[in-house]
Amino acid sequence: MNLLLPPDCSPETRFLLGISGGRDSVALLEALWAAGYRHLILCHLNHQLRGSDSDGDAAFVADLARAYGLEAEIGSGDVRALAARARISIELAARRARLSFFKECAARHDIPRVLLAHHAGDQVETILMRLLRGTGRKGLGGMRPVARLGGLILIRPFLQTRRDHLPLPARFREDASNATDLFLRNRLRNRAIPVLREAFGRDFTEAVGSMAEVLREEERLLEQWAGESLRSLGDGGNGLDAKRFRALPVALQRRVLLGWMSGAGVPGIGFRHVEAARQVGLGSASPAKVNLPGDWHLRRRAGSLLLDPPSPGPSGHLGDLGRPQ
Amino acid sequence: MNLLLPPDCSPETRFLLGISGGRDSVALLEALWAAGYRHLILCHLNHQLRGSDSDGDAAFVADLARAYGLEAEIGSGDVRALAARARISIELAARRARLSFFKECAARHDIPRVLLAHHAGDQVETILMRLLRGTGRKGLGGMRPVARLGGLILIRPFLQTRRDHLPLPARFREDASNATDLFLRNRLRNRAIPVLREAFGRDFTEAVGSMAEVLREEERLLEQWAGESLRSLGDGGNGLDAKRFRALPVALQRRVLLGWMSGAGVPGIGFRHVEAARQVGLGSASPAKVNLPGDWHLRRRAGSLLLDPPSPGPSGHLGDLGRPQ
Repeated sequence: MNLLLPPDCSPETRFLLGISGGRDSVALLEALWAAGYRHLILCHLNHQLRGSDSDGDAAFVADLARAYGLEAEIGSGDVRALAARARISIELAARRARLSFFKECAARHDIPRVLLAHHAGDQVETILMRLLRGTGRKGLGGMRPVARLGGLILIRPFLQTRRDHLPLPARFREDASNATDLFLRNRLRNRAIPVLREAFGRDFTEAVGSMAEVLREEERLLEQWAGESLRSLGDGGNGLDAKRFRALPVALQRRVLLGWMSGAGVPGIGFRHVEAARQVGLGSASPAKVNLPGDWHLRRRAGSLLLDPPSPGPSGHLGDLGRPQ
Repeated sequence: MNLLLPPDCSPETRFLLGISGGRDSVALLEALWAAGYRHLILCHLNHQLRGSDSDGDAAFVADLARAYGLEAEIGSGDVRALAARARISIELAARRARLSFFKECAARHDIPRVLLAHHAGDQVETILMRLLRGTGRKGLGGMRPVARLGGLILIRPFLQTRRDHLPLPARFREDASNATDLFLRNRLRNRAIPVLREAFGRDFTEAVGSMAEVLREEERLLEQWAGESLRSLGDGGNGLDAKRFRALPVALQRRVLLGWMSGAGVPGIGFRHVEAARQVGLGSASPAKVNLPGDWHLRRRAGSLLLDPPSPGPSGHLGDLGRPQ
């Protein structure tokens, strides 16, 4: 089991440690402690999804902190209510709640680094979920070992280690790490992946992990190229140069359009929107206009591609349908 | 159900039609016939994997040809023996046998175009298999709607259509299309994918298919860039320029090395070989040499990266281990 940490981290570095009380996050605490890391603040968010069980997890983490003589931040958030309010999945609501909780902790202690216990098995689940959602090369790169997000630096020292290679902690909460079948991740972990492994005939954790590393670097490169292409086409406010757009390889046409539209604020863009926009850009669609989500429109006029924002107030035929919440 | 054919194809075009006698390939025959395509030669290879069942499939295809008044090519190959001889999986042996059978038919009739009945569900299985094998780059793009292979033009008119959107043929062989549990593909189809779909909560065929289309175009672009980068680094025979190599983005370093080594004939290159070679190229590995499969070696010397072929005869410490069969 090797602890994968960025070169600028040492036992003197101060960290927040995201901890559920489950096997993986407690194993991370023990591994860090064994490696001489002492400046750790245990951060636990009670998701209130499993009643007294959840409270038990929080209490366990508080005990653990006392046992190690470490500070603890125990937060609590009604994730179900949050999900209902924002009309999002409980899974997404939980992720948002954790993120804002970590941000609070980071601000309070002036510590941007958050250690997370995601391991190679979690990575496989993430990649599988994203494959099924069709979220392309970016998604298939999975979680990053080090990721900057909203002022935080998320660090995943176990990301290249298989769970069965992690040391078993002395004590941990049996259920905590496995939450509930409410989560797609857990349904994949508990039902689908065992069947996949059996059908495949051997473990695929390492193969998928290496593939993800390759895809992450390719994604970085493609995004850079797409960004340069987008800038070379305009849009200082006069849209994109349609002629130059047509000269791009298909893959860059797609990324340029996606970057341009999402950058302008068009919500929920899918593959078919990008392809419809691309046909307009190629001049092969007539009329030279396409409806986009959130009542946005893309037009081709006088050699330029233009984005029209939703007209204010009660508006066109799409009305407020598809407006971002 | 839409029949996806290249623009240069018409009812006057002559095709070979790969047909198992199963539901999908008979549906393709019926769809083509309904669309006015008459110049079809039914090509069926008896894999001899299911005894009298296999013979029954072959007889069925012959009857079908008579019923439609079409020519048929019924071939036969002992796939099990081929697999044993070549020390490969039965799945791979079957694919090779079909390919060389199609090549024979193509030569005999001077028809390069082979129609195959792969549908969007087959595409999902292919991509899932390749994900589990970790064949990131190309693999996740799945099968191509039109693919040139060894003089053949493989065409898959159903590739974007879900199986449950294909018309049910009047008569077909129940088992033919589903062969046997010997094949990973069938284990995924029959066991794993139903569980995945149930865990995911909805069908993911279309999402995965769109993602594959995006990845195929990105792959084309990356391969083109990697090819140009490789040529700009040498190797006219004096290896690659190490300084220029180091200046490349990581993603291109990997593709350049992979293309260079496999182009030179190094067998079975995996992620860890590419990474080991990359460390030598970056000058961060010492000694500046790495062992590759098939007793090849990669060295850095005087600012160049060099590939050493296996020494002839009884050779270095790796001996003949890893030599390609």
